[in-house]
Amino acid sequence: MREITARELSLNTATLGPARSLREAVQACLRHGIGGISPWRDKIAEAGLDNAARMIREAGLAVSGVCRGGMFPAADAEGRNRALAENHRAVDEAAALGAACLVMVVGGLPPASKDLAGARRQVADGLAATLGYARVQNVPLAIEPLHPMYAADRACINTLGQALDVCDTLGPGIGVAIDVYHVWWDPDLDAAIARAGASGRLLAYHVCDWLVPTRDLLLDRGMMGDGVIDLRRIRGSVEAAGYAGPCEVEIFSSMTWWPKPPDEILATMVERGRSCV
Amino acid sequence: MREITARELSLNTATLGPARSLREAVQACLRHGIGGISPWRDKIAEAGLDNAARMIREAGLAVSGVCRGGMFPAADAEGRNRALAENHRAVDEAAALGAACLVMVVGGLPPASKDLAGARRQVADGLAATLGYARVQNVPLAIEPLHPMYAADRACINTLGQALDVCDTLGPGIGVAIDVYHVWWDPDLDAAIARAGASGRLLAYHVCDWLVPTRDLLLDRGMMGDGVIDLRRIRGSVEAAGYAGPCEVEIFSSMTWWPKPPDEILATMVERGRSCV
Repeated sequence: MREITARELSLNTATLGPARSLREAVQACLRHGIGGISPWRDKIAEAGLDNAARMIREAGLAVSGVCRGGMFPAADAEGRNRALAENHRAVDEAAALGAACLVMVVGGLPPASKDLAGARRQVADGLAATLGYARVQNVPLAIEPLHPMYAADRACINTLGQALDVCDTLGPGIGVAIDVYHVWWDPDLDAAIARAGASGRLLAYHVCDWLVPTRDLLLDRGMMGDGVIDLRRIRGSVEAAGYAGPCEVEIFSSMTWWPKPPDEILATMVERGRSCV
Repeated sequence: MREITARELSLNTATLGPARSLREAVQACLRHGIGGISPWRDKIAEAGLDNAARMIREAGLAVSGVCRGGMFPAADAEGRNRALAENHRAVDEAAALGAACLVMVVGGLPPASKDLAGARRQVADGLAATLGYARVQNVPLAIEPLHPMYAADRACINTLGQALDVCDTLGPGIGVAIDVYHVWWDPDLDAAIARAGASGRLLAYHVCDWLVPTRDLLLDRGMMGDGVIDLRRIRGSVEAAGYAGPCEVEIFSSMTWWPKPPDEILATMVERGRSCV
Protein backbone atom coordinates (compact mmCIF):
# COMPACT_ATOMS: atom_id res chain seq x y z
CA MET A 1 0.00 0.00 0.00
CA ARG A 2 1.09 3.55 -0.72
CA GLU A 3 2.24 5.78 2.12
CA ILE A 4 -0.25 8.51 3.04
CA THR A 5 1.71 11.74 3.34
CA ALA A 6 0.30 15.24 3.65
CA ARG A 7 0.08 15.42 -0.17
CA GLU A 8 -2.36 12.50 -0.22
CA LEU A 9 -4.62 14.11 2.38
CA SER A 10 -7.47 16.49 1.71
CA LEU A 11 -8.90 18.77 4.40
CA ASN A 12 -12.66 18.85 4.65
CA THR A 13 -13.34 22.31 6.03
CA ALA A 14 -15.75 20.93 8.65
CA THR A 15 -12.72 19.45 10.43
CA LEU A 16 -11.67 22.91 11.61
CA GLY A 17 -15.12 23.66 13.01
CA PRO A 18 -17.69 26.27 12.05
CA ALA A 19 -15.64 29.25 13.29
CA ARG A 20 -12.86 29.01 10.67
CA SER A 21 -13.01 30.68 7.26
CA LEU A 22 -12.08 29.12 3.95
CA ARG A 23 -9.03 31.40 3.87
CA GLU A 24 -7.86 30.03 7.23
CA ALA A 25 -8.36 26.50 5.95
CA VAL A 26 -6.42 27.15 2.72
CA GLN A 27 -3.54 28.80 4.57
CA ALA A 28 -3.40 25.96 7.10
CA CYS A 29 -3.22 23.46 4.23
CA LEU A 30 -0.29 25.37 2.72
CA ARG A 31 1.58 25.45 6.04
CA HIS A 32 1.23 21.69 6.47
CA GLY A 33 1.71 20.58 2.85
CA ILE A 34 -1.83 19.17 2.60
CA GLY A 35 -2.59 18.35 -1.04
CA GLY A 36 -6.32 18.97 -1.22
CA ILE A 37 -9.35 20.64 0.23
CA SER A 38 -13.08 19.92 0.33
CA PRO A 39 -15.07 23.03 1.18
CA TRP A 40 -18.59 23.17 2.60
CA ARG A 41 -20.91 25.49 0.74
CA ASP A 42 -21.41 27.86 3.65
CA LYS A 43 -17.67 28.50 3.64
CA ILE A 44 -17.72 29.06 -0.14
CA ALA A 45 -20.58 31.53 0.30
CA GLU A 46 -18.75 33.39 3.08
CA ALA A 47 -15.68 33.81 0.88
CA GLY A 48 -17.60 34.44 -2.32
CA LEU A 49 -17.40 31.85 -5.12
CA ASP A 50 -14.90 33.69 -7.37
CA ASN A 51 -12.66 34.51 -4.46
CA ALA A 52 -12.88 30.93 -3.16
CA ALA A 53 -11.92 29.54 -6.57
CA ARG A 54 -8.98 31.94 -6.88
CA MET A 55 -7.68 31.21 -3.37
CA ILE A 56 -7.79 27.47 -3.88
CA ARG A 57 -6.25 27.66 -7.38
CA GLU A 58 -3.43 29.93 -6.25
CA ALA A 59 -2.70 27.62 -3.35
CA GLY A 60 -2.41 24.70 -5.77
CA LEU A 61 -4.91 22.62 -3.83
CA ALA A 62 -6.93 19.85 -5.46
CA VAL A 63 -10.65 20.01 -4.65
CA SER A 64 -11.58 16.48 -3.62
CA GLY A 65 -15.25 17.41 -3.31
CA VAL A 66 -17.78 20.09 -2.54
CA CYS A 67 -20.06 19.51 0.47
CA ARG A 68 -22.87 19.24 -0.27
CA GLY A 69 -25.82 18.71 -2.54
CA GLY A 70 -28.83 16.53 -1.77
CA MET A 71 -31.54 17.02 0.88
CA PHE A 72 -34.22 16.18 -1.68
CA PRO A 73 -37.28 14.91 0.24
CA ALA A 74 -39.85 17.58 1.02
CA ALA A 75 -43.45 17.71 2.12
CA ASP A 76 -44.71 19.25 -1.12
CA ALA A 77 -43.83 20.08 -4.72
CA GLU A 78 -42.71 23.57 -3.82
CA GLY A 79 -40.20 22.17 -1.34
CA ARG A 80 -38.96 19.64 -3.86
CA ASN A 81 -38.48 22.36 -6.48
CA ARG A 82 -36.58 24.51 -4.02
CA ALA A 83 -34.28 21.56 -3.32
CA LEU A 84 -33.66 21.03 -7.04
CA ALA A 85 -32.82 24.70 -7.57
CA GLU A 86 -30.42 24.56 -4.64
CA ASN A 87 -28.77 21.48 -6.13
CA HIS A 88 -28.27 23.27 -9.45
CA ARG A 89 -26.44 26.03 -7.58
CA ALA A 90 -24.32 23.42 -5.82
CA VAL A 91 -23.41 21.89 -9.19
CA ASP A 92 -22.41 25.34 -10.47
CA GLU A 93 -20.16 25.88 -7.47
CA ALA A 94 -18.52 22.47 -7.83
CA ALA A 95 -17.91 23.24 -11.52
CA ALA A 96 -16.42 26.65 -10.74
CA LEU A 97 -14.04 25.07 -8.22
CA GLY A 98 -13.06 22.21 -10.52
CA ALA A 99 -14.16 19.76 -7.83
CA ALA A 100 -13.63 16.03 -8.31
CA CYS A 101 -17.26 15.54 -7.27
CA LEU A 102 -20.27 17.08 -5.61
CA VAL A 103 -20.98 15.07 -2.47
CA MET A 104 -24.67 14.21 -2.13
CA VAL A 105 -26.17 13.87 1.35
CA VAL A 106 -29.56 12.89 0.06
CA GLY A 107 -31.89 13.86 2.90
CA GLY A 108 -34.16 11.95 5.27
CA LEU A 109 -37.87 11.94 5.99
CA PRO A 110 -39.90 15.07 5.26
CA PRO A 111 -41.35 16.72 8.41
CA ALA A 112 -43.98 14.54 10.15
CA SER A 113 -43.55 11.74 7.61
CA LYS A 114 -42.93 8.08 8.40
CA ASP A 115 -42.81 7.07 4.74
CA LEU A 116 -39.22 5.92 4.35
CA ALA A 117 -39.86 4.19 1.03
CA GLY A 118 -41.48 7.37 -0.25
CA ALA A 119 -38.49 9.46 0.86
CA ARG A 120 -36.22 7.06 -0.99
CA ARG A 121 -38.29 7.48 -4.15
CA GLN A 122 -38.03 11.26 -3.79
CA VAL A 123 -34.27 10.91 -3.46
CA ALA A 124 -34.00 8.83 -6.62
CA ASP A 125 -36.11 11.38 -8.50
CA GLY A 126 -34.08 14.31 -7.15
CA LEU A 127 -30.79 12.65 -8.05
CA ALA A 128 -32.04 11.92 -11.56
CA ALA A 129 -33.10 15.54 -12.06
CA THR A 130 -29.82 16.91 -10.71
CA LEU A 131 -27.76 14.42 -12.68
CA GLY A 132 -29.05 15.76 -15.99
CA TYR A 133 -27.67 19.17 -15.15
CA ALA A 134 -24.48 17.85 -13.53
CA ARG A 135 -23.58 15.91 -16.67
CA VAL A 136 -23.80 19.07 -18.76
CA GLN A 137 -21.54 20.84 -16.26
CA ASN A 138 -19.16 17.87 -16.09
CA VAL A 139 -19.58 17.51 -12.33
CA PRO A 140 -19.67 13.93 -11.07
CA LEU A 141 -22.23 13.39 -8.32
CA ALA A 142 -21.07 11.27 -5.37
CA ILE A 143 -23.79 9.75 -3.19
CA GLU A 144 -22.53 9.50 0.36
CA PRO A 145 -24.35 6.69 2.15
CA LEU A 146 -24.82 7.89 5.71
CA HIS A 147 -24.81 5.81 8.88
CA PRO A 148 -28.24 4.32 9.63
CA MET A 149 -28.51 6.53 12.72
CA TYR A 150 -29.08 9.43 10.29
CA ALA A 151 -31.81 7.71 8.25
CA ALA A 152 -34.59 9.90 9.66
CA ASP A 153 -33.04 13.33 9.52
CA ARG A 154 -30.07 13.42 7.14
CA ALA A 155 -29.91 10.66 4.57
CA CYS A 156 -32.12 7.67 3.80
CA ILE A 157 -29.41 6.04 1.70
CA ASN A 158 -27.68 4.07 4.43
CA THR A 159 -25.45 1.41 2.92
CA LEU A 160 -22.93 1.41 0.13
CA GLY A 161 -24.83 -1.36 -1.63
CA GLN A 162 -28.03 0.69 -1.55
CA ALA A 163 -26.17 3.71 -2.99
CA LEU A 164 -24.73 1.57 -5.79
CA ASP A 165 -28.19 0.19 -6.60
CA VAL A 166 -29.38 3.78 -7.06
CA CYS A 167 -26.35 4.59 -9.23
CA ASP A 168 -27.08 1.58 -11.43
CA THR A 169 -30.59 2.83 -12.14
CA LEU A 170 -29.23 6.29 -13.05
CA GLY A 171 -26.38 5.45 -15.40
CA PRO A 172 -23.11 7.36 -15.89
CA GLY A 173 -22.01 10.55 -14.12
CA ILE A 174 -22.85 9.41 -10.60
CA GLY A 175 -20.95 7.36 -8.04
CA VAL A 176 -20.25 7.15 -4.34
CA ALA A 177 -18.27 8.88 -1.60
CA ILE A 178 -17.20 6.32 0.99
CA ASP A 179 -16.80 7.69 4.50
CA VAL A 180 -15.50 5.11 6.93
CA TYR A 181 -17.60 6.58 9.74
CA HIS A 182 -20.79 5.64 7.96
CA VAL A 183 -19.91 2.20 6.57
CA TRP A 184 -17.26 0.57 8.79
CA TRP A 185 -19.81 -1.70 10.53
CA ASP A 186 -21.34 -3.11 7.30
CA PRO A 187 -20.90 -6.90 7.00
CA ASP A 188 -21.12 -6.50 3.20
CA LEU A 189 -18.59 -3.66 3.03
CA ASP A 190 -15.77 -5.38 1.16
CA ALA A 191 -18.07 -6.72 -1.55
CA ALA A 192 -19.69 -3.31 -1.97
CA ILE A 193 -16.32 -1.55 -2.22
CA ALA A 194 -15.20 -3.99 -4.89
CA ARG A 195 -18.46 -3.43 -6.75
CA ALA A 196 -18.00 0.36 -6.56
CA GLY A 197 -14.52 0.07 -8.00
CA ALA A 198 -15.47 -2.36 -10.75
CA SER A 199 -18.26 -0.06 -11.92
CA GLY A 200 -16.04 3.05 -11.90
CA ARG A 201 -18.14 4.68 -9.23
CA LEU A 202 -15.65 5.08 -6.39
CA LEU A 203 -15.26 8.87 -6.44
CA ALA A 204 -14.15 9.85 -2.94
CA TYR A 205 -12.80 8.36 0.28
CA HIS A 206 -13.28 10.04 3.67
CA VAL A 207 -11.58 9.11 6.94
CA CYS A 208 -12.02 9.79 10.64
CA ASP A 209 -12.74 7.34 13.46
CA TRP A 210 -15.57 5.89 15.58
CA LEU A 211 -15.09 6.61 19.27
CA VAL A 212 -16.18 4.33 22.12
CA PRO A 213 -18.16 5.73 23.77
CA THR A 214 -19.69 8.10 21.22
CA ARG A 215 -21.24 10.96 23.21
CA ASP A 216 -23.21 12.69 20.47
CA LEU A 217 -24.82 11.30 17.34
CA LEU A 218 -23.45 14.06 15.10
CA LEU A 219 -20.55 15.95 16.65
CA ASP A 220 -18.35 13.34 18.35
CA ARG A 221 -16.29 11.84 15.54
CA GLY A 222 -12.76 10.83 16.34
CA MET A 223 -9.35 11.60 14.83
CA MET A 224 -7.95 8.67 12.87
CA GLY A 225 -6.38 6.22 15.32
CA ASP A 226 -8.42 7.29 18.34
CA GLY A 227 -11.32 4.91 17.68
CA VAL A 228 -12.12 1.36 16.64
CA ILE A 229 -12.19 1.50 12.84
CA ASP A 230 -9.57 -0.65 11.12
CA LEU A 231 -8.60 2.14 8.72
CA ARG A 232 -5.64 0.36 7.18
CA ARG A 233 -7.77 -2.62 6.25
CA ILE A 234 -10.57 -0.55 4.70
CA ARG A 235 -8.10 1.58 2.72
CA GLY A 236 -6.62 -1.68 1.47
CA SER A 237 -10.02 -2.69 0.11
CA VAL A 238 -10.61 0.75 -1.39
CA GLU A 239 -7.24 0.81 -3.14
CA ALA A 240 -7.57 -2.80 -4.27
CA ALA A 241 -10.79 -1.65 -5.93
CA GLY A 242 -8.76 0.90 -7.92
CA TYR A 243 -9.09 4.08 -5.88
CA ALA A 244 -5.96 6.24 -6.06
CA GLY A 245 -7.35 9.62 -4.98
CA PRO A 246 -6.89 11.55 -1.77
CA CYS A 247 -7.92 10.54 1.74
CA GLU A 248 -10.25 13.33 2.81
CA VAL A 249 -10.37 14.04 6.54
CA GLU A 250 -13.80 15.04 7.81
CA ILE A 251 -14.13 15.22 11.60
CA PHE A 252 -17.14 16.77 13.31
CA SER A 253 -15.91 17.13 16.88
CA SER A 254 -17.44 19.96 18.85
CA MET A 255 -15.97 18.85 22.17
CA THR A 256 -12.46 17.63 21.32
CA TRP A 257 -11.03 19.00 18.06
CA TRP A 258 -12.95 22.13 17.08
CA PRO A 259 -11.74 24.04 20.16
CA LYS A 260 -8.09 23.40 19.13
CA PRO A 261 -6.00 25.68 16.87
CA PRO A 262 -5.96 24.66 13.18
CA ASP A 263 -2.22 23.97 13.28
CA GLU A 264 -2.65 21.38 16.01
CA ILE A 265 -5.49 19.71 14.11
CA LEU A 266 -3.55 19.57 10.82
CA ALA A 267 -0.30 18.43 12.41
CA THR A 268 -2.19 15.57 14.05
CA MET A 269 -3.99 14.78 10.78
CA VAL A 270 -0.68 14.49 8.95
CA GLU A 271 0.92 12.33 11.64
CA ARG A 272 -2.13 10.05 11.82
CA GLY A 273 -2.27 9.89 8.02
CA ARG A 274 1.13 8.20 8.07
CA SER A 275 0.63 6.05 11.15
CA CYS A 276 -3.05 5.06 11.07
CA VAL A 277 -4.85 5.65 7.76
CA MET B 1 -54.36 -7.13 10.73
CA ARG B 2 -55.24 -8.18 14.26
CA GLU B 3 -55.93 -5.57 16.90
CA ILE B 4 -53.18 -5.17 19.48
CA THR B 5 -54.82 -5.12 22.90
CA ALA B 6 -53.14 -5.33 26.28
CA ARG B 7 -53.24 -9.15 25.98
CA GLU B 8 -51.05 -9.04 22.86
CA LEU B 9 -48.43 -6.85 24.57
CA SER B 10 -45.48 -8.02 26.59
CA LEU B 11 -43.64 -5.75 29.02
CA ASN B 12 -39.87 -5.80 28.78
CA THR B 13 -38.80 -4.92 32.31
CA ALA B 14 -36.29 -2.34 31.02
CA THR B 15 -39.26 -0.17 30.02
CA LEU B 16 -39.92 0.67 33.68
CA GLY B 17 -36.31 1.69 34.27
CA PRO B 18 -33.62 0.22 36.51
CA ALA B 19 -35.31 1.24 39.78
CA ARG B 20 -38.34 -1.09 39.52
CA SER B 21 -38.36 -4.66 40.76
CA LEU B 22 -39.69 -7.69 38.91
CA ARG B 23 -42.53 -7.80 41.44
CA GLU B 24 -43.52 -4.22 40.59
CA ALA B 25 -43.42 -5.11 36.88
CA VAL B 26 -45.57 -8.22 37.34
CA GLN B 27 -48.13 -6.38 39.44
CA ALA B 28 -48.28 -3.51 36.94
CA CYS B 29 -48.92 -6.02 34.14
CA LEU B 30 -51.81 -7.52 36.14
CA ARG B 31 -53.36 -4.11 36.78
CA HIS B 32 -53.28 -3.26 33.05
CA GLY B 33 -54.16 -6.66 31.59
CA ILE B 34 -50.78 -7.02 29.85
CA GLY B 35 -50.40 -10.57 28.55
CA GLY B 36 -46.68 -11.13 28.81
CA ILE B 37 -43.40 -10.12 30.37
CA SER B 38 -39.77 -10.24 29.34
CA PRO B 39 -37.46 -9.92 32.33
CA TRP B 40 -33.83 -8.82 32.30
CA ARG B 41 -31.50 -11.13 34.16
CA ASP B 42 -30.54 -8.56 36.81
CA LYS B 43 -34.22 -8.36 37.78
CA ILE B 44 -34.47 -12.17 37.90
CA ALA B 45 -31.39 -12.27 40.13
CA GLU B 46 -32.80 -9.60 42.47
CA ALA B 47 -36.03 -11.58 42.89
CA GLY B 48 -34.35 -14.97 42.99
CA LEU B 49 -35.00 -17.42 40.15
CA ASP B 50 -37.53 -19.67 41.92
CA ASN B 51 -39.45 -16.71 43.27
CA ALA B 52 -39.40 -15.00 39.85
CA ALA B 53 -40.76 -18.13 38.16
CA ARG B 54 -43.51 -18.50 40.76
CA MET B 55 -44.55 -14.83 40.57
CA ILE B 56 -44.79 -14.90 36.78
CA ARG B 57 -46.59 -18.25 36.72
CA GLU B 58 -49.13 -17.20 39.35
CA ALA B 59 -49.77 -13.98 37.44
CA GLY B 60 -50.52 -16.00 34.32
CA LEU B 61 -48.01 -14.03 32.26
CA ALA B 62 -46.40 -15.47 29.15
CA VAL B 63 -42.61 -14.98 29.06
CA SER B 64 -41.87 -13.62 25.61
CA GLY B 65 -38.14 -13.72 26.24
CA VAL B 66 -35.33 -13.47 28.76
CA CYS B 67 -32.85 -10.60 28.29
CA ARG B 68 -30.16 -11.53 27.66
CA GLY B 69 -27.46 -13.96 26.64
CA GLY B 70 -24.58 -13.16 24.32
CA MET B 71 -21.61 -10.80 24.86
CA PHE B 72 -19.25 -13.46 23.50
CA PRO B 73 -16.14 -11.67 22.18
CA ALA B 74 -13.32 -11.41 24.68
CA ALA B 75 -9.62 -10.64 24.61
CA ASP B 76 -8.53 -14.13 25.66
CA ALA B 77 -9.67 -17.72 26.15
CA GLU B 78 -10.42 -17.16 29.82
CA GLY B 79 -12.80 -14.33 28.92
CA ARG B 80 -14.48 -16.43 26.26
CA ASN B 81 -14.96 -19.29 28.69
CA ARG B 82 -16.45 -16.97 31.28
CA ALA B 83 -18.90 -15.74 28.64
CA LEU B 84 -19.90 -19.31 27.75
CA ALA B 85 -20.49 -20.22 31.38
CA GLU B 86 -22.62 -17.09 31.81
CA ASN B 87 -24.64 -18.07 28.73
CA HIS B 88 -25.29 -21.53 30.17
CA ARG B 89 -26.71 -19.88 33.28
CA ALA B 90 -28.88 -17.65 31.08
CA VAL B 91 -30.22 -20.73 29.28
CA ASP B 92 -31.03 -22.33 32.63
CA GLU B 93 -32.97 -19.25 33.71
CA ALA B 94 -34.88 -19.06 30.44
CA ALA B 95 -35.77 -22.76 30.84
CA ALA B 96 -36.90 -22.26 34.44
CA LEU B 97 -39.17 -19.40 33.38
CA GLY B 98 -40.56 -21.26 30.36
CA ALA B 99 -39.43 -18.38 28.14
CA ALA B 100 -40.30 -18.36 24.45
CA CYS B 101 -36.65 -17.56 23.75
CA LEU B 102 -33.39 -16.35 25.21
CA VAL B 103 -32.56 -13.05 23.49
CA MET B 104 -28.94 -12.90 22.35
CA VAL B 105 -27.16 -9.54 22.26
CA VAL B 106 -23.99 -10.98 20.84
CA GLY B 107 -21.34 -8.46 21.92
CA GLY B 108 -19.02 -6.08 20.09
CA LEU B 109 -15.26 -5.66 19.83
CA PRO B 110 -13.07 -6.92 22.67
CA PRO B 111 -11.22 -4.12 24.53
CA ALA B 112 -8.63 -2.34 22.32
CA SER B 113 -9.52 -4.49 19.30
CA LYS B 114 -10.36 -3.21 15.82
CA ASP B 115 -10.87 -6.71 14.43
CA LEU B 116 -14.57 -6.67 13.58
CA ALA B 117 -14.37 -9.80 11.42
CA GLY B 118 -12.61 -11.59 14.28
CA ALA B 119 -15.32 -10.50 16.74
CA ARG B 120 -17.94 -11.85 14.36
CA ARG B 121 -16.13 -15.20 14.24
CA GLN B 122 -16.04 -15.29 18.05
CA VAL B 123 -19.78 -14.60 18.07
CA ALA B 124 -20.50 -17.45 15.67
CA ASP B 125 -18.38 -19.79 17.81
CA GLY B 126 -20.03 -18.63 21.02
CA LEU B 127 -23.51 -19.08 19.59
CA ALA B 128 -22.64 -22.56 18.36
CA ALA B 129 -21.34 -23.56 21.79
CA THR B 130 -24.37 -22.15 23.59
CA LEU B 131 -26.81 -23.63 21.09
CA GLY B 132 -25.70 -27.16 21.92
CA TYR B 133 -26.73 -26.63 25.53
CA ALA B 134 -29.86 -24.62 24.68
CA ARG B 135 -31.19 -27.44 22.48
CA VAL B 136 -30.91 -29.89 25.36
CA GLN B 137 -32.79 -27.45 27.59
CA ASN B 138 -35.38 -26.72 24.88
CA VAL B 139 -34.65 -22.99 24.93
CA PRO B 140 -34.74 -21.32 21.51
CA LEU B 141 -31.98 -18.75 21.07
CA ALA B 142 -33.02 -15.49 19.39
CA ILE B 143 -30.25 -13.37 17.88
CA GLU B 144 -31.19 -9.72 18.15
CA PRO B 145 -29.47 -7.76 15.42
CA LEU B 146 -28.58 -4.41 16.96
CA HIS B 147 -28.49 -1.02 15.26
CA PRO B 148 -25.13 -0.38 13.56
CA MET B 149 -24.41 2.40 16.07
CA TYR B 150 -23.83 -0.40 18.62
CA ALA B 151 -21.44 -2.42 16.44
CA ALA B 152 -18.37 -1.51 18.51
CA ASP B 153 -19.64 -1.95 22.03
CA ARG B 154 -22.81 -4.06 22.12
CA ALA B 155 -23.40 -6.29 19.11
CA CYS B 156 -21.51 -6.86 15.88
CA ILE B 157 -24.54 -8.53 14.27
CA ASN B 158 -26.17 -5.45 12.79
CA THR B 159 -28.72 -6.45 10.18
CA LEU B 160 -31.48 -9.01 10.09
CA GLY B 161 -29.96 -10.56 6.97
CA GLN B 162 -26.63 -11.00 8.73
CA ALA B 163 -28.36 -12.62 11.71
CA LEU B 164 -30.20 -15.03 9.42
CA ASP B 165 -26.97 -15.94 7.64
CA VAL B 166 -25.54 -16.91 11.04
CA CYS B 167 -28.67 -18.91 11.87
CA ASP B 168 -28.39 -20.80 8.58
CA THR B 169 -24.87 -21.93 9.44
CA LEU B 170 -26.02 -23.14 12.87
CA GLY B 171 -29.15 -25.12 12.04
CA PRO B 172 -32.26 -25.57 14.16
CA GLY B 173 -32.96 -24.13 17.62
CA ILE B 174 -31.88 -20.57 16.81
CA GLY B 175 -33.71 -17.66 15.24
CA VAL B 176 -34.06 -13.90 15.51
CA ALA B 177 -35.66 -11.26 17.71
CA ILE B 178 -36.69 -8.29 15.55
CA ASP B 179 -36.67 -4.95 17.35
CA VAL B 180 -37.95 -2.13 15.17
CA TYR B 181 -35.50 0.32 16.76
CA HIS B 182 -32.55 -1.59 15.33
CA VAL B 183 -33.83 -2.48 11.87
CA TRP B 184 -36.39 0.12 10.74
CA TRP B 185 -33.87 1.90 8.45
CA ASP B 186 -32.79 -1.24 6.56
CA PRO B 187 -33.55 -1.05 2.82
CA ASP B 188 -33.63 -4.88 2.77
CA LEU B 189 -35.93 -5.20 5.80
CA ASP B 190 -39.04 -6.60 4.12
CA ALA B 191 -37.10 -9.30 2.29
CA ALA B 192 -35.26 -10.26 5.48
CA ILE B 193 -38.50 -10.46 7.49
CA ALA B 194 -40.03 -12.72 4.87
CA ARG B 195 -36.91 -14.88 4.93
CA ALA B 196 -37.06 -15.10 8.74
CA GLY B 197 -40.66 -16.22 8.60
CA ALA B 198 -40.16 -18.71 5.80
CA SER B 199 -37.31 -20.39 7.71
CA GLY B 200 -39.28 -20.55 10.96
CA ARG B 201 -36.81 -18.27 12.70
CA LEU B 202 -39.00 -15.32 13.65
CA LEU B 203 -39.08 -15.79 17.42
CA ALA B 204 -39.80 -12.34 18.89
CA TYR B 205 -40.97 -8.87 17.90
CA HIS B 206 -40.05 -5.76 19.90
CA VAL B 207 -41.52 -2.29 19.49
CA CYS B 208 -40.69 1.26 20.56
CA ASP B 209 -39.92 4.29 18.37
CA TRP B 210 -37.03 6.32 16.92
CA LEU B 211 -37.12 9.93 18.11
CA VAL B 212 -35.97 12.92 16.06
CA PRO B 213 -33.75 14.25 17.45
CA THR B 214 -32.27 11.33 19.38
CA ARG B 215 -30.34 12.83 22.30
CA ASP B 216 -28.49 9.76 23.52
CA LEU B 217 -27.28 6.69 21.64
CA LEU B 218 -28.62 4.27 24.25
CA LEU B 219 -31.20 5.80 26.57
CA ASP B 220 -33.45 7.96 24.37
CA ARG B 221 -35.85 5.53 22.74
CA GLY B 222 -39.38 6.72 22.15
CA MET B 223 -42.83 5.41 23.06
CA MET B 224 -44.63 3.93 20.06
CA GLY B 225 -46.16 6.76 18.05
CA ASP B 226 -43.78 9.47 19.26
CA GLY B 227 -41.16 8.88 16.57
CA VAL B 228 -40.74 8.20 12.86
CA ILE B 229 -41.02 4.41 12.57
CA ASP B 230 -43.93 3.18 10.48
CA LEU B 231 -44.88 0.55 13.07
CA ARG B 232 -48.11 -0.53 11.40
CA ARG B 233 -46.31 -1.25 8.15
CA ILE B 234 -43.50 -3.26 9.78
CA ARG B 235 -45.95 -5.29 11.89
CA GLY B 236 -47.80 -6.01 8.66
CA SER B 237 -44.63 -7.50 7.19
CA VAL B 238 -43.90 -9.45 10.36
CA GLU B 239 -47.41 -10.90 10.55
CA ALA B 240 -47.46 -11.62 6.81
CA ALA B 241 -44.31 -13.67 7.48
CA GLY B 242 -46.32 -15.77 9.96
CA TYR B 243 -45.56 -14.18 13.30
CA ALA B 244 -48.49 -14.37 15.71
CA GLY B 245 -46.74 -13.81 19.04
CA PRO B 246 -46.76 -10.81 21.36
CA CYS B 247 -45.50 -7.31 20.66
CA GLU B 248 -42.89 -6.77 23.33
CA VAL B 249 -42.37 -3.19 24.45
CA GLU B 250 -38.76 -2.32 25.26
CA ILE B 251 -38.07 1.38 25.84
CA PHE B 252 -34.82 2.66 27.29
CA SER B 253 -35.71 6.24 28.17
CA SER B 254 -33.78 7.72 31.06
CA MET B 255 -35.03 11.27 30.46
CA THR B 256 -38.69 10.85 29.49
CA TRP B 257 -40.28 7.58 30.59
CA TRP B 258 -38.21 6.08 33.40
CA PRO B 259 -38.99 8.98 35.75
CA LYS B 260 -42.74 8.34 35.33
CA PRO B 261 -44.85 5.99 37.53
CA PRO B 262 -45.29 2.46 36.11
CA ASP B 263 -49.05 2.94 35.77
CA GLU B 264 -48.58 5.92 33.47
CA ILE B 265 -46.07 4.02 31.35
CA LEU B 266 -48.30 0.95 31.04
CA ALA B 267 -51.49 2.90 30.37
CA THR B 268 -49.68 4.73 27.55
CA MET B 269 -48.27 1.43 26.23
CA VAL B 270 -51.74 -0.07 26.04
CA GLU B 271 -53.25 2.98 24.35
CA ARG B 272 -50.41 3.17 21.83
CA GLY B 273 -50.59 -0.55 21.22
CA ARG B 274 -54.11 -0.05 19.89
CA SER B 275 -53.50 3.22 18.05
CA CYS B 276 -49.95 2.96 16.73
CA VAL B 277 -48.38 -0.53 16.78
